[in-house]
Amino acid sequence: MALGEFDLIERFFSRPSRRRDVLLGVGDDAALLEVPPGRALVAATDTLVEGRHFLPGTPPEAIGHQALAVNLSDLAAMGADPAWALLSLSLPEVRESWLTRFAAGLYGLADAHGVELVGGDTVRGPLVITIEVLGFVEPALALRRSGARVGDLLYVSGWPGEAAAGLAALQGTAAAVEDPLVVRFLYAEPRLALGKALRGRASAAMDVSDGLLGDLGKLCRASGVGARLDLECLPVSAELARRHGRDACEQFVLSGGDDYELLFTVPPAGREQLEAELRPRFPLTRIGVIEEAAGGVRCLRNGVETGVRGEGYDHFA
Amino acid sequence: MALGEFDLIERFFSRPSRRRDVLLGVGDDAALLEVPPGRALVAATDTLVEGRHFLPGTPPEAIGHQALAVNLSDLAAMGADPAWALLSLSLPEVRESWLTRFAAGLYGLADAHGVELVGGDTVRGPLVITIEVLGFVEPALALRRSGARVGDLLYVSGWPGEAAAGLAALQGTAAAVEDPLVVRFLYAEPRLALGKALRGRASAAMDVSDGLLGDLGKLCRASGVGARLDLECLPVSAELARRHGRDACEQFVLSGGDDYELLFTVPPAGREQLEAELRPRFPLTRIGVIEEAAGGVRCLRNGVETGVRGEGYDHFA
Repeated sequence: MALGEFDLIERFFSRPSRRRDVLLGVGDDAALLEVPPGRALVAATDTLVEGRHFLPGTPPEAIGHQALAVNLSDLAAMGADPAWALLSLSLPEVRESWLTRFAAGLYGLADAHGVELVGGDTVRGPLVITIEVLGFVEPALALRRSGARVGDLLYVSGWPGEAAAGLAALQGTAAAVEDPLVVRFLYAEPRLALGKALRGRASAAMDVSDGLLGDLGKLCRASGVGARLDLECLPVSAELARRHGRDACEQFVLSGGDDYELLFTVPPAGREQLEAELRPRFPLTRIGVIEEAAGGVRCLRNGVETGVRGEGYDHFA
Repeated sequence: MALGEFDLIERFFSRPSRRRDVLLGVGDDAALLEVPPGRALVAATDTLVEGRHFLPGTPPEAIGHQALAVNLSDLAAMGADPAWALLSLSLPEVRESWLTRFAAGLYGLADAHGVELVGGDTVRGPLVITIEVLGFVEPALALRRSGARVGDLLYVSGWPGEAAAGLAALQGTAAAVEDPLVVRFLYAEPRLALGKALRGRASAAMDVSDGLLGDLGKLCRASGVGARLDLECLPVSAELARRHGRDACEQFVLSGGDDYELLFTVPPAGREQLEAELRPRFPLTRIGVIEEAAGGVRCLRNGVETGVRGEGYDHFA
């Protein structure tokens, strides 16, 4: 059954608002929202394109989840409280079953984090999904990329590389959607709780979206520093290690995106407290140290400099 | 010359911020923005798809202008002050000349209204442009679709239909980009000044984006009212009248979108002041009156009911 554009938004993407700070949600020319006094608004946007960010045939629930997750990960990297989202959906055709499942994936993640969908646009076109997320944070506590200082310790959360290995499995022939690595790719969880916990602790932070090594380079450029990365310290999940050899694992960890893990730095004086207070709640691995800018990003293995170089994923490379 | 994604954002879409309320702009995981105390945040998003919203071969300046204009028009319809924008650009390839011209069109309009581009995402894919605009307004003064009451007078700004006639001319063979109707389609101006002037005066407002008649229906549904539209009162521009017969003109005015004109209602007691104070500054035409819901939207010509019906543009019809 073909639905019109107007029905589409009202039917699949408007629900009674659950947030009191939504003065006006879906259905007018724009949303009216209340930012708490003393907080800065935090705004980010990311786009998913079929065939590039997800494969044709991907479960619609996963696309809905992923489209929001990649955006919420940006808020996590700022230490922000997420609040609202807007959805722009370009669709080749209207299929109710697809939309129902897409909305279920999107709302599943939105509800888990108290995020309200407050507006959007649906147009006919190639399958392209853009979400904008809005949240807030005390400006002085926002986690920026630019705050890393020489001597700060470098950490990464969780197990980066699993999602990339999941995508590789999907691109092969035999992977099932129950494969734990595939699940990590399709349903990666943004690290919102960790981002909030890092407020006032981390000197710099960003989410790993284009690969750990390339993203570290970006953090270093933003901060005007270099870094030493200790390859033997990289976290490799048991599942990744079980399925791939050492070199492949390292490659996945250094170059894979889409895990939505956080890369962050902590001043040496904050190390003990950070590890004592956050390690029980979050998987955290210390993987290096911030150095002078002149050295760039160096990858060492057991203290010996290596030639390992890596670039982040570049859509136009 | 091919540029990487990272260079792309920094090279074409980051400039030193001109707004003091931008705490952090392009270049981090998200933007940090300051909403003035006592104001509500206003957020809208719209997407343009090549071949649907603009024709292949459209000047990139016009695409940049249009992508922002359609969004600013949503803020105008709320009576909001625009402040910031985020850009998601899906591009089949990176051509510097295209990007330079696209950015020039976008920044031309942004600068005219003091709007700062504070973030974005660029990916490889079909040519799809999504912009999200953010602004603010005193919540009690925001123009909503839902405030029209029986007896309120119905107005439209400017000359709706010109842009649709311009598009029709472009779809023909002989139209030049200097054709004034084509210019109206390619470079329509959002009615931000009028939107602000209507704060505290209009009981309801929306922008005409899918056609006057269809959009009037939406305003009526949101307000729980009906309306009488006086066809002989519809504004028809001199250029439109010169180029098309009466019936075609009426069709363009009733069904054309993309002019970014405002449709709004004013309580009868406010009519005299509105016309005295705003007519010198803005082209305004009184085109009907709000009625009881039971009558729906009726189109009369010189007091006689007609069978004129119209639907707004529906992307999935």
